[in-house]
Amino acid sequence: MFISFEGTEGVGKTTLIRRLFEYFQQQGKDVVLTREPGGTPLAEQIRSLLLSVNHDEKMSNDTELLLMYAARAQHIEAVILPALGAGKIVLCDRFIDSSFAYQCAGRGLSRDKLHLLNENFVAQMPDLTFWLDAPIELGMTRARERGALDRFEQEKVTFFESVRSGFAEIHARDPERMKRLDATQTEDAVFAEALSYLE
Amino acid sequence: MFISFEGTEGVGKTTLIRRLFEYFQQQGKDVVLTREPGGTPLAEQIRSLLLSVNHDEKMSNDTELLLMYAARAQHIEAVILPALGAGKIVLCDRFIDSSFAYQCAGRGLSRDKLHLLNENFVAQMPDLTFWLDAPIELGMTRARERGALDRFEQEKVTFFESVRSGFAEIHARDPERMKRLDATQTEDAVFAEALSYLE
Repeated sequence: MFISFEGTEGVGKTTLIRRLFEYFQQQGKDVVLTREPGGTPLAEQIRSLLLSVNHDEKMSNDTELLLMYAARAQHIEAVILPALGAGKIVLCDRFIDSSFAYQCAGRGLSRDKLHLLNENFVAQMPDLTFWLDAPIELGMTRARERGALDRFEQEKVTFFESVRSGFAEIHARDPERMKRLDATQTEDAVFAEALSYLE
Repeated sequence: MFISFEGTEGVGKTTLIRRLFEYFQQQGKDVVLTREPGGTPLAEQIRSLLLSVNHDEKMSNDTELLLMYAARAQHIEAVILPALGAGKIVLCDRFIDSSFAYQCAGRGLSRDKLHLLNENFVAQMPDLTFWLDAPIELGMTRARERGALDRFEQEKVTFFESVRSGFAEIHARDPERMKRLDATQTEDAVFAEALSYLE
């Protein structure tokens, strides 16, 4: 089983993933916790290019998209497919839906470009996706409390409103795979809601 | 005018490009010398991921291809298009044909994948391409004399034979754009042959 976790900044993805990781471990399940962009040493190097703030050179939108998929291809081949092949549960902090939400809905990149990258370079889709949804201001406050903001976190509220509407669009299109969790609730309540979908 | 230079390792691309750069400068032309993967600070960071040898993690073929195009997208947007727009001559050490020769002919990656990346992420084709062609053994000897071999240079002779046949295939398909130079000749003779095509 391959479960991905999506949402804008500061909605509590990391907390929920850790609780589900412990939950599966307590059930005696073999479970892998990973993230995108990243998940392998090389993919983490690509992540650091993607997140680092460089005021001297603006990253082109196409470059951002292609770096995301370069990291993803490595992650799928080196981590996700081997883990699923060995019967493990994979919990992944962000996956393919973030590319749609951030690069297409957020940056305005062509959906056709994303679609062809998905068709040709993504060998594995999640079985289940949790979308943690909360008003942007709430998440931004939490993100700011965590410390210095990365290249994405420095974007404006209007950008994140577009990203959020991107997730809403995927949810409307594919409600079987993507479950919306109300991330304004307490951590316990979000965890309980996620468990209810798992059972 | 946008001129790219292609070929396997050690065939003398750098020498020819430098001589043509000086030639154009002496003619009073505004000329930019650049290279792929690379050509901007960010694209050079991607280059370093692509070329560095890492025995702990094998880079997937898709990742290699997507990193090449991520660097290329940045290079085209930040360097090539602005230079051409300003009426400059751009001389580029490797471009799109290396992706076909190394990733498709060499690694066996699907031509369809390459084609769709070219169609969607390459906003500028070269007006003229010089393919410096020489037997693989000759170039490998020269490459080894230059010092430590990068991730590509460490490949086997059979790999480079496939790469060379990839360049030959492009040349057969598009002889108007791609001119073959006999790189077994002296530097002066290669330069003179290139000049004859420019005039």
